[in-house]
Amino acid sequence: MSDVAVIGASMTQFGEREEWILGLLAEAGMACLDDAGVESDRIDHLYVSNMASGEFEGQTGVPNALAHDLSAMPAYTQRVDQTSSSGGAGIYAAWQSVASGASEMTLLVGGEKMTHRTTGEATDVIASLTHPVEYKQGVTLPSFAGLAARLYLEEYGAPRESLAKVAVKNHANGVDNPHAQFRKEIDVETAMEAPMVADPLRLYDFCPITDGSAALLFCPEEVASEYTDEYAVVSGVAGATDTHVVHERTDPTTMGGVVESGRQAYEMAGIGPEDVDVAELHDMFTILEFLQMEALGFAPEGEAWKEMDRGTTAIDGERPINTSGGLKSKGHPLGASGVAQGYEIYKQVTGDAGDRQVDADVGVACNVGGFGNCVTTAIMEGRR
Amino acid sequence: MSDVAVIGASMTQFGEREEWILGLLAEAGMACLDDAGVESDRIDHLYVSNMASGEFEGQTGVPNALAHDLSAMPAYTQRVDQTSSSGGAGIYAAWQSVASGASEMTLLVGGEKMTHRTTGEATDVIASLTHPVEYKQGVTLPSFAGLAARLYLEEYGAPRESLAKVAVKNHANGVDNPHAQFRKEIDVETAMEAPMVADPLRLYDFCPITDGSAALLFCPEEVASEYTDEYAVVSGVAGATDTHVVHERTDPTTMGGVVESGRQAYEMAGIGPEDVDVAELHDMFTILEFLQMEALGFAPEGEAWKEMDRGTTAIDGERPINTSGGLKSKGHPLGASGVAQGYEIYKQVTGDAGDRQVDADVGVACNVGGFGNCVTTAIMEGRR
Repeated sequence: MSDVAVIGASMTQFGEREEWILGLLAEAGMACLDDAGVESDRIDHLYVSNMASGEFEGQTGVPNALAHDLSAMPAYTQRVDQTSSSGGAGIYAAWQSVASGASEMTLLVGGEKMTHRTTGEATDVIASLTHPVEYKQGVTLPSFAGLAARLYLEEYGAPRESLAKVAVKNHANGVDNPHAQFRKEIDVETAMEAPMVADPLRLYDFCPITDGSAALLFCPEEVASEYTDEYAVVSGVAGATDTHVVHERTDPTTMGGVVESGRQAYEMAGIGPEDVDVAELHDMFTILEFLQMEALGFAPEGEAWKEMDRGTTAIDGERPINTSGGLKSKGHPLGASGVAQGYEIYKQVTGDAGDRQVDADVGVACNVGGFGNCVTTAIMEGRR
Repeated sequence: MSDVAVIGASMTQFGEREEWILGLLAEAGMACLDDAGVESDRIDHLYVSNMASGEFEGQTGVPNALAHDLSAMPAYTQRVDQTSSSGGAGIYAAWQSVASGASEMTLLVGGEKMTHRTTGEATDVIASLTHPVEYKQGVTLPSFAGLAARLYLEEYGAPRESLAKVAVKNHANGVDNPHAQFRKEIDVETAMEAPMVADPLRLYDFCPITDGSAALLFCPEEVASEYTDEYAVVSGVAGATDTHVVHERTDPTTMGGVVESGRQAYEMAGIGPEDVDVAELHDMFTILEFLQMEALGFAPEGEAWKEMDRGTTAIDGERPINTSGGLKSKGHPLGASGVAQGYEIYKQVTGDAGDRQVDADVGVACNVGGFGNCVTTAIMEGRR
């Protein structure tokens, strides 16, 4: 079987946007086709990663509307929902459509429109993914993050500042990302003194509520060569679940879904963590960057914070993490985030990441739904 | 590549159910595993076809909860949404997961919980899939059906009774389906004199609001033989879109998405309509059974009603249609319906359809989203 190639990518400005979901998706979709130099009538499959357009905007059937607006009819279209990892699930669905032989050109567009709702309303929609028993006790995703962060700091003797430094690093990276929601540096003191949200986590330990969209274009590797000689291949991709009820986990600081999806993706690509040059991790909360580093084998258990202190994860380090600015500064429009992770890795491994470019042939994107309830991990390798 | 096999199937009682979405899905999922004699730890991919658990019940993340309840962790899980054709889209997604080599055992469960909402509320959720311009003018799916029915009757000189006869036939078939919502025969007079809904369509031209779930189990054909020597293969499957805005169609009585998905599915299976022994069509409205018969090549344009009058589509006819009772009498729990169509075809081509059994080696399931906005067509062939 031919490898599955990625031949184009785009993302819109993330932040507070005037457009509704369909406008955001169409903007990213068209930009992606332009980026690849592919006409819309070549698309035979169109996947839309989106968690909650029905709940946020009262609009469903969005993939059909997008097929219309992109002039992609009669391409097959479908919505992929895996809550906050809908984008990564979309990468997996797009890979499957090409790898199964069903598709010769699949466009994946992920997006979410959220900022017209209050933070409380948005948090409530997101919290509807949790187990009802947990939700009724007032446990939302930010509160899980607080509990996991406290446990991690106590168990491994990590200083509170280490979490602040994740935010500082990712904000610094975001300054060079023209699409990021927040392009401003912060310092450790600011992060340490910000308002408390879920003890010990403060404001800068959390990603914002965001509108935005991102897109990727997939085809068999032999079709890619019709369009470009610089592209990426998806050399590994897999998904896995952890317990739906978070309090049933033996060790809440071990992300089982990340471990398992990473294991499968590495095996498929025939590589290990030591071969990875750059990674986009799902830093919805700062603590998650550490937990995913450890689950993916980038650091021993309990030592991710030491790797960061060594500078390994900085943009000029040995294995930069979240060169895009991460969800932390780039923003987190649910269905878009996993696709935007893929966008960053694609740009890095094809040498097209501009001011954020690092030395990278192999990159990993890890997208997390819920509090690790479902995870997809994708590995891309540059071909040029 | 090995063919993709279906080795198990189940459906719950359709109708007004006490259980919520998760309970319905778990019931169908467990019954399907039992039917196949497969343990839940063998499942590596779990797809959930569902349109609107968030809108109907305020619950998202249902696939994760189901993975938990079925003890399927760490299987990958994802929601497949293509509005009322989510079930057919699930069959396509499950096929892709196996055909791509990603999965050796994929469980697909489709379901919807709707009857706790009023008919008006449910219709409103469904209407959110239409183009906002159409919706604001008060055009819902039933009103589209009325317009298309009137056009069809006038254009092809079909008598109004022909639509009533579709309802009569499908209600008669439903009597022998223990899972059907309405197991009662009706006569043409009753259908012709029922309350008007969308002129010329009356109450019995419409499917009901329904709760229910259905499931199918997929694996490579070589794995199937570990469990059974009677199974089905998905010999053809494809999806396609028509215009999102219904009034942009040149001919509203031609279902372009059905034509295109059918063409692709036939080509993949290497067969034509003349080879099809039995079909489940998406008779959300009686008129749609005629339009799909014509789009799939079971009758010339404008002549489906004549085929029905000849008895071709009756359960003892040459090509029975909707032996299950169809959406009309079986019910239409959105995300479940396409999976339940697959259930019926699987049962027919494996010779396990009980009182509804017809002589069938090859069957077609056609699942329609919106008013033909997106369609999937699957062809199953029995192996025994």
